[in-house]
This record gives sequence, structure tokens and C-alpha cells, in this order.
Amino acid sequence: MSDLILTTYDWVPEPPRGLVRDLRVRWALEEAGLAYRVESTPFRDRGAEHFAAQPFGQVPWLTDGDLTIFESGAILLHLGEKSPALMPTDPRGRAEVVEWVIAALNSVDLPSQPWALFRFMSFPGDSPEAKFVEDFLKARLDRMEAVLAAREWLAAGRFTVADLLMADVLRQVNRFDGLAKYPACHAYVARATARPAFVKAYDDQMAHFAMADAA
Amino acid sequence: MSDLILTTYDWVPEPPRGLVRDLRVRWALEEAGLAYRVESTPFRDRGAEHFAAQPFGQVPWLTDGDLTIFESGAILLHLGEKSPALMPTDPRGRAEVVEWVIAALNSVDLPSQPWALFRFMSFPGDSPEAKFVEDFLKARLDRMEAVLAAREWLAAGRFTVADLLMADVLRQVNRFDGLAKYPACHAYVARATARPAFVKAYDDQMAHFAMADAA
Repeated sequence: MSDLILTTYDWVPEPPRGLVRDLRVRWALEEAGLAYRVESTPFRDRGAEHFAAQPFGQVPWLTDGDLTIFESGAILLHLGEKSPALMPTDPRGRAEVVEWVIAALNSVDLPSQPWALFRFMSFPGDSPEAKFVEDFLKARLDRMEAVLAAREWLAAGRFTVADLLMADVLRQVNRFDGLAKYPACHAYVARATARPAFVKAYDDQMAHFAMADAA
Repeated sequence: MSDLILTTYDWVPEPPRGLVRDLRVRWALEEAGLAYRVESTPFRDRGAEHFAAQPFGQVPWLTDGDLTIFESGAILLHLGEKSPALMPTDPRGRAEVVEWVIAALNSVDLPSQPWALFRFMSFPGDSPEAKFVEDFLKARLDRMEAVLAAREWLAAGRFTVADLLMADVLRQVNRFDGLAKYPACHAYVARATARPAFVKAYDDQMAHFAMADAA
């Protein structure tokens, strides 16, 4: 039996399907060819056990032997250390991966997640706060466009967990058509999500939540 | 001569002083007792050399021998691996530190930074976006309050780089009085920022920018 257990919700409403963050962990596990199984925690009733594993009451978390790790970014770094397919082992390659993982989470996702959530909520978008977040995201995408126009993958000259995460962050911008003026970013997301490991992870997440509908 | 070089702006306007992110790197270096020197890059004129070191045109970055690392979160993890004062070396302690570093950057800073920026900009705050970010931050602080009411430090039973980062993130909420209803979070920030290494880092940043005024 596998030691790696990925825990996600038992069910979510339609709109976030395909975007729940267990997807990036499934994707990494598929890229690395690591055996794992998926367990579920109730979406509707989040009890003490859930908060003990994930202090914000979210998903996913990963169980690896006697370790339980929350935060998808931390799980990806943990898996990166288990598999050179996800992260090189030399100091320079490793440092490049870590800095771009953090850039995805704190420089790009920081404006892109509020931006996408405002769209998702269908806010009118005419407030100073909406404009501020729009400009903040634009500043980041302008820079990502320059970076991605000059290289295929972000770190170490090859696909790594940094691309997996950055592409997953940009995918959520793309969902609301936010990459229309950024052809290099758009092509990067297309390139990353064409990988068989992404396709399997996506299909598996969709099947997981569809199964709950049927139950 | 020291191999560790921290690069920050040569000058910034008054309001962000004490909050520029080189502070958290100075703090970590002081906690670890690692020798370093500080270099400056122009705030007003950010050229190709700046973007080559920091692709978003921000600061800080750290030079460690032939490595240059950007993103303060990545720098802190790098320093954590150089010094057990910042991060334990056992797998469980290390995993706890990494998950809380990521939680600070992607679960707490994600709403807290827009929230603080909206305050800094003195937006009226009556838009649906302002309300959304307010509620988002509240959800995170409610959970951080529960966590910090039950423990002194976040990871591995002692002060680590995870606390340094989380306290620095929460400090920016506190600056706009956002922790008034969160006594455990407030006490945590007070506890962390009373450490001599924080006080030195803060004073050094203030002196660095004041020196530029005088020049």
C-alpha cells in the first residue's frame, strides 16, 4: 500500500471543479510517477479533525508516512525533494525552483487570486479597489510576459514544479480571459496543461467530484 | 569578506520605511548570526541589471557566492537551510516550518496585503471588493487567532523563520489596527518584534534609508 495519501473534499459545487488545489498535487504526483491514493474530507461539515490537518479548514493535505503537510505550495516543495523529475538536486537548480515557486504564490497569485475571485463574484468592477487589483495584476503579468517570451520553462532550463505551480496560477487568470493580451503567458499555460500528467490530474479531479454527485 | 550580500533600494519614500522586505532578510541574518553586507539598487531608475536579479523589479535579493536568490520567502528558506537557528534539520520540524512559511505567503498575506494596500491608499472601503477582502482577511485571522491562542510559536515548538515571516505579515495588518480584535495575534507580533534581531534589523533599515536622505 502506498504511503502517500492526498486528502481533498468529498464534493464541491460545479464552479470550482477543475480548480480545487488538490489538482496541482495530483499533477505533481503524476509527473513524478509516485504512487498515491486519494481520501476525502467533508466539504459541508468541517470538523476538528479537518482543522487539525489544515488550520484554515481548506484542502488539500498530504500524508507521507507519519508526516501530514498542508499548503499546496509546501506539498509541492516536499514532493520536489522526493523526485528529481520535479526539482533538480543541484544547489542552483534547486534555488531557482524555490524562488519561482514562491514568486507564483506571493508575487503572481497575490493579485491574481483576488482578481479572479472578483470576476467569479461578478462584482461591477468600477471601484478603486477593483482598479487597484487590476493594475497590480497587470504589473505582474507584464513582467511574466517578458520572462516567458524568452524561455520555455522558468527554472533550471526544464519543466519543474515551479512551472506546475505558476501555470496553475496563470490558468485561473486565463479562465476569466485575463491572458488575452499576454501571448507568451497564454502559450505557457497551454504548453504546461498539454502535459499528460496535467490531463490525468484534471480528469481525475473531475471524476472524483462527479462520483460524489452520483452517490 | 562576507559572501552574503543583501540588496535593497538606495532610498524609499517615508511611508514604506520599516516595511520594505529587506527587513525580514536582515532579521533572519541577525537571528542566525550570519555575516552579511548590504548593497543598494536605485529605487527611481530600475534598469536591466535590476530586472535580471529580480524579475518583478522589486527588492530584496540575496547573493550567496555565485547564487542570486529573489523573493523574500525563498531567501528565508535558503537561510533556513544554512542555519538551524532558523529552521530545524529533522524532517518533521522542517516540514512544519515550510508549510507555515507558505501559509504566511499564500494564505495570510494573500488577503492581508491587498487589505493593507487599500488602507494605505485611503480608499473609501464601501465597494463589494473592499468588503470581500475584509471578509477574506477576517476568515484567515479567525483561524490564526485559534492557532496562536494555543501555542507560542508556529512550528517545531520554537521560534523559526516561519514565525519571522508570519509576524512580519501580521505586523503590516497591525499597522492599520487590523489586529484589534485578535489578542493572540497581537501578542504574537509583539513577542516576535521584541526580539533583539528584529529591533536591530528595523533600526538598520531605518538608518539605511535615512542615510540616503542625508546624502
